Amino acid sequence: MATQGQVITCKAAVAWEPNKPLSIEDVQVAPPQAGEVRVKILYTALCHTDAYTWSGKDPEGLFPCILGHEAAGIVESVGEGVTNVQPGDHVIPCYQAECGECKFCKSGKTNLCGKVRSATGVGVMLSDRKSRFSINGKTIYHFMGTSTFSQYTVVHDVSVAKIDPAAPLDKVCLLGCGVPTGLGAVWNTAKVEPGSIVAVFGLGTVGLAVAEGAKSAGASRIIGIDIDSKKFDTAKNFGVTEFINPKEHDKPIQQVIVDLTDGGVDYSFECIGNVSVMRAALECCHKGWGTSVIVGVAASGQEISTRPFQLVTGRVWKGTAFGGFKSRSQVPWLVEKYLKKEIKVDEYITHNLTLGEINKAFDLMHGGGCLRCVLSTDA
Amino acid sequence: MATQGQVITCKAAVAWEPNKPLSIEDVQVAPPQAGEVRVKILYTALCHTDAYTWSGKDPEGLFPCILGHEAAGIVESVGEGVTNVQPGDHVIPCYQAECGECKFCKSGKTNLCGKVRSATGVGVMLSDRKSRFSINGKTIYHFMGTSTFSQYTVVHDVSVAKIDPAAPLDKVCLLGCGVPTGLGAVWNTAKVEPGSIVAVFGLGTVGLAVAEGAKSAGASRIIGIDIDSKKFDTAKNFGVTEFINPKEHDKPIQQVIVDLTDGGVDYSFECIGNVSVMRAALECCHKGWGTSVIVGVAASGQEISTRPFQLVTGRVWKGTAFGGFKSRSQVPWLVEKYLKKEIKVDEYITHNLTLGEINKAFDLMHGGGCLRCVLSTDA
Ligand SMILES: NC(=O)c1ccc[n+]([C@@H]2O[C@H](COP(=O)([O-])OP(=O)(O)OC[C@H]3O[C@@H](n4cnc5c(N)ncnc54)[C@H](O)[C@@H]3O)[C@@H](O)[C@H]2O)c1
Ligand SMILES: NC(=O)c1ccc[n+]([C@@H]2O[C@H](COP(=O)([O-])OP(=O)(O)OC[C@H]3O[C@@H](n4cnc5c(N)ncnc54)[C@H](O)[C@@H]3O)[C@@H](O)[C@H]2O)c1
Ligand SMILES: [Zn+2]
Ligand SMILES: [Zn+2]
Ligand SMILES: [Zn+2]
Ligand SMILES: [Zn+2]
Repeated sequence: MATQGQVITCKAAVAWEPNKPLSIEDVQVAPPQAGEVRVKILYTALCHTDAYTWSGKDPEGLFPCILGHEAAGIVESVGEGVTNVQPGDHVIPCYQAECGECKFCKSGKTNLCGKVRSATGVGVMLSDRKSRFSINGKTIYHFMGTSTFSQYTVVHDVSVAKIDPAAPLDKVCLLGCGVPTGLGAVWNTAKVEPGSIVAVFGLGTVGLAVAEGAKSAGASRIIGIDIDSKKFDTAKNFGVTEFINPKEHDKPIQQVIVDLTDGGVDYSFECIGNVSVMRAALECCHKGWGTSVIVGVAASGQEISTRPFQLVTGRVWKGTAFGGFKSRSQVPWLVEKYLKKEIKVDEYITHNLTLGEINKAFDLMHGGGCLRCVLSTDA
Repeated sequence: MATQGQVITCKAAVAWEPNKPLSIEDVQVAPPQAGEVRVKILYTALCHTDAYTWSGKDPEGLFPCILGHEAAGIVESVGEGVTNVQPGDHVIPCYQAECGECKFCKSGKTNLCGKVRSATGVGVMLSDRKSRFSINGKTIYHFMGTSTFSQYTVVHDVSVAKIDPAAPLDKVCLLGCGVPTGLGAVWNTAKVEPGSIVAVFGLGTVGLAVAEGAKSAGASRIIGIDIDSKKFDTAKNFGVTEFINPKEHDKPIQQVIVDLTDGGVDYSFECIGNVSVMRAALECCHKGWGTSVIVGVAASGQEISTRPFQLVTGRVWKGTAFGGFKSRSQVPWLVEKYLKKEIKVDEYITHNLTLGEINKAFDLMHGGGCLRCVLSTDA
């Protein structure tokens, strides 16, 4: 290919400093080094982690950077030694790597690969601990090892999943974060059984994917909780059977749910990122076995708390990252499930814009009516 | 028998008010009603829950009462409809009931039977919500459904385990609480696998039983943590392979353990009842899979806390009551294991006294050198 081995100059949305509108810039993207893959991003969605780092509240956020981690594209070129993908492959970048070799991958107990963490956590690539992005020589940092708000990005080979080329990239880009997180929280982390009573706190994309996962696992009741009553209409389509708005109750929401369920739910999921709701989600669980899974990401420094008696009497408190899915092995499987119409994806997409309209997309995300906004990267 | 159907007057240690020495009194013990069993207690040990309620810090503590819940004895008589035991049977009273019929028992997920909880929680028997203990007509409350600091007690039939009469009652009385709690925390709640690295916080009876359970489960390293360095010598005999005294370190103890174990332990157990230690026990667990089990009982009103990120990155927070053992089905099995020398019991008994010396026994428990003190109930 003409671009292989060359620096590519392309459009990207750069976050120069916290809380300032992103600006579309001409960015130089260096060729992939050994163990790296350069991907032409075609579609990227926005997720709350992008907004969180952009807001400046993430103490590990580095600026200037290129945000974005829920996307799909096509491999442009690969560095030395890369064997899992080749130019032309359709791929989904994975912020949760999977190397298959580290202590984490080999444990069989977690999807949290440790291979490239030390580099992706500080916005660089592992081999030389440098960024592949620059503007006229000035370094622009990577983000989550993905940086998908760009027409081209460079990722580690352990951070990219090869998918069926039949899959529409403008849809399956969502399988890079929010939807798998919700489905996996139910299937992998909680392992919900048929007949279970489930509570889902927060009915955004992640909460709706939890509801969908719970429905497919055979849950008998799926109680959706959101402070925005408008969410219920959509939520029904994802499997939510009952709706509670905490604002309409005087009692603490955990008490409302315990009363409604003869002692509490079997499984609860916090899909908001609010530490008081995390407590409520634990405490609405049934004594003896109720399991609560934290999915939402709370602001830095915030803490969860409860009385230890809640755990001594049998409740279990867990959390999940990327729904416990092993990214490179299981994202392609999720794509197949989508193609077989076994999981929803299209239904989460409420808006379509272009990369140039990204600031509008952030505004939409903070409004009420948006689940996922997909941006095409056409200039 | 001569006493059957009659009120029995016998000696019991009565707690008249919080924090005042117990006094040995002549107590009237009414005959068992339908579904109840009157037991001649031969041996009883002391456990921290007795001391906790006695101290007045337990907001649910009722006075005057007869404390005690770790004991063994012989059935004196049974009320109408009792089929699981008969006069002469050797038994261990079980503060954790097992009815086999309630929602909890039928769930297959917990040992927390709900059948008699509403009565035992307020010091009475279920059938008429009255106490079977009195002194010259004045009601003395039951405690934990067991009240074993008495020569005779009345318990619900769902709260008594029939055991092999070959077992020495002055030893197996310990299988009524502390030892099963520690063993079960490992075997039932955490399900420790061979090769695991385990941390045990607090090396009293419960912590030592955790160590013993972990050793028998094949743990590769068992790290004991106690602020009393004298505990290490004994702890070695129960399987502890390494000892840490937090007082000898400047760093937080969770950091010391993470450094010592290349990232943290696979399983940790809090066997103290201290909420800051509960946090440390969670945070010394390995990212991705480390599981922490709360066994210690914290003072009322105290709360545990941590950053939710600890759970989102794969740690699991649990608790256990009576080690998850189903009391009536599994205490007899533990007795058999003891008789086959597969579990220790004798080794936890550091002192032997009589019921009349019970206040001395409480003093011993608060000193450093005592694990379990067994009282004979001979007058
Ligand atoms: N653990 C992971 O791997 C992972 C991955 C992706 C996203 N997340 C996190 O999941 C969370 C949800 O993401 P999303 O995209 O679905 O967000 P979203 O903003 O679309 O949805 C959140 C929902 O919660 C509702 N809500 C807000 N406060 C509430 C309250 N106090 N009580 C009840 N409902 C309340 C909102 O009305 C909204 O419907 C975020 O914190 C995100 O960072 C975690
Ligand atoms: N969950 C249950 O079903 C259950 C059953 C029985 C007992 N318990 C509880 O288990 C706990 C332990 O019982 P036990 O009989 O073994 O008690 P114990 O007092 O004999 O042992 C506690 C040990 O912890 C040590 N310790 C105290 N503070 C410490 C600290 N900050 N750091 C490290 N070590 C510290 C002490 O030196 C002592 O060796 C108690 O809270 C008891 O109420 C719970
Ligand atoms: Zn995301
Ligand atoms: Zn790995
Ligand atoms: Zn006890
Ligand atoms: Zn029961």
